[in-house]
Amino acid sequence: MRITVLAGGVGAARFLRGLRAAVPDADITVIGNTGDDFTPFGLHVSPDLDTVMYTLGGGISEEQGWGRAGESHVVLGELAAYGAGPDWFGLGDLDLATHILRTQLLLAGRSLSEVTAALCQRWQPGVTLLPMSDDPVRTHVTVDLDGREQVLHFQEWWVRLHAAVPASRIEPVGAARARPAPGVLEAIAAADFVLFPPSNPVVSIGVILAVPGIAEAVRAKTVVGVSPIIGGAPVRGMADACLTAIGVATSATAVAAHYGPDLLDGWLVDTQDKDAADAPELAGIAIQARPLYMTSVAAAAQIAQAAVELAGQVRR
Amino acid sequence: MRITVLAGGVGAARFLRGLRAAVPDADITVIGNTGDDFTPFGLHVSPDLDTVMYTLGGGISEEQGWGRAGESHVVLGELAAYGAGPDWFGLGDLDLATHILRTQLLLAGRSLSEVTAALCQRWQPGVTLLPMSDDPVRTHVTVDLDGREQVLHFQEWWVRLHAAVPASRIEPVGAARARPAPGVLEAIAAADFVLFPPSNPVVSIGVILAVPGIAEAVRAKTVVGVSPIIGGAPVRGMADACLTAIGVATSATAVAAHYGPDLLDGWLVDTQDKDAADAPELAGIAIQARPLYMTSVAAAAQIAQAAVELAGQVRR
Repeated sequence: MRITVLAGGVGAARFLRGLRAAVPDADITVIGNTGDDFTPFGLHVSPDLDTVMYTLGGGISEEQGWGRAGESHVVLGELAAYGAGPDWFGLGDLDLATHILRTQLLLAGRSLSEVTAALCQRWQPGVTLLPMSDDPVRTHVTVDLDGREQVLHFQEWWVRLHAAVPASRIEPVGAARARPAPGVLEAIAAADFVLFPPSNPVVSIGVILAVPGIAEAVRAKTVVGVSPIIGGAPVRGMADACLTAIGVATSATAVAAHYGPDLLDGWLVDTQDKDAADAPELAGIAIQARPLYMTSVAAAAQIAQAAVELAGQVRR
Repeated sequence: MRITVLAGGVGAARFLRGLRAAVPDADITVIGNTGDDFTPFGLHVSPDLDTVMYTLGGGISEEQGWGRAGESHVVLGELAAYGAGPDWFGLGDLDLATHILRTQLLLAGRSLSEVTAALCQRWQPGVTLLPMSDDPVRTHVTVDLDGREQVLHFQEWWVRLHAAVPASRIEPVGAARARPAPGVLEAIAAADFVLFPPSNPVVSIGVILAVPGIAEAVRAKTVVGVSPIIGGAPVRGMADACLTAIGVATSATAVAAHYGPDLLDGWLVDTQDKDAADAPELAGIAIQARPLYMTSVAAAAQIAQAAVELAGQVRR
């Protein structure tokens, strides 16, 4: 079985760990969002790729959901002693090694795909992890700050401001001219079906779909998604702030309607959102309600199993 | 009093700490060797500049003579886990912060002089620290390794091979087209005298003097040097291997003769090398013998004081 998954960070990583457990023999390709990438201290950080890689490779901090287990922060403290910022992004020493190596390889002329493959040589995530594009895409967020409109890098809004300042616009800068990374369109075309894990529909899945060619390729396939919204609130993170910025309500129904029946064939919602099955705007999408909280790897595996089964049922 | 000092690493740094103590009101400019600079993991390391900065700024590891006190090695261990090298250069976490920041500022278009000044803002070394040049100079060493001639970066020969493989050639690549950094020629011209601390005559002082314009400027001034060779052996490091490569004997006399009376006006040798005063090849150089082991800051201050006094006596 070949499965291709579009992935953001923590939610995707935990779902993927479940998927790998649920269908251990499946050939899984993960297309990761790189719109969150940024370069603190000139070091190339790919938060979503790393969260997937560390989680599947056994190096993740389970408490945080991102970053490394057993982490220390000597270098960041020292950079702060120099007065160098940013000081709001928790770059640990173990994690920094990944960014130092990635930056070195990129500066030596390697592509982000090649670098990702090189890093995965060590972590052995058990999936093929591809960045959505080797071209730079940076998600920018327009906010009203201190009485004037300002454009921030996504990370500054998300991590420094905790997305507490309303966004009037979210734009994946560079996406329009970005090309899918080598293997991305091929992996989608070759897949038996495509899964959307419970990732942010705007800044994760939405940004991946903004790379020309990817949405078209996905639309040609059977697609099953797992709602990142349960009971009107994001399970994790601040997806509500992103949905509000693009005029979509924070509900499992509204997110599925945002993707639309043209893209989505099946949609897993939490038991408490089972009314979605009756929503007229979701006609054409097979809705299935079940517990969606990924409280353990076993729970995530059951959710992934349900997504795989739903894909089998709705397969075009 | 204005003093300009050409500096290598550990010996220079300890001498400078003594000089600052001996003449606290002097205006001291240090011109640091950058031929040892290298870029492990794509990070710009300036070993000699850092050794001077950390030593005078109170951050040095006294045991090592280089690197930071209280150092840890989390990042380097993690890079090794990725199979990334070099693993023979002891880059600590505290130290890495300096290199990360330097690299970031250089990539942002700052010059090495500007970056050095920015880093010294924190360390307050009490001297003006200038790189010899903002242009890249890299000391290469030709050795016979595994039966064939190979050209290595100085650091690989010095640190990885402990200079145990004889060098047939030592070349400061790029020096011929390098320009003295802003302020270098001015500091030499404005100095009451120039001091050579007990630094390596070949790969430290020699490389600085290889930058066009610097040797000429120094030659116009009163110059007093402190012998890095005591009793026929380097006080520290493997200067003998460098001297052998350029056909100079490892003795206080031979090093002074190598600089020559055209450059050197005064030369401090250790008591056990007092015969240098009778060497005919040193005619024209005022030789003074005294204990030269820098066993403490106080001892280094006495040596520095002696160098300052000798400069006063031989002043042109």
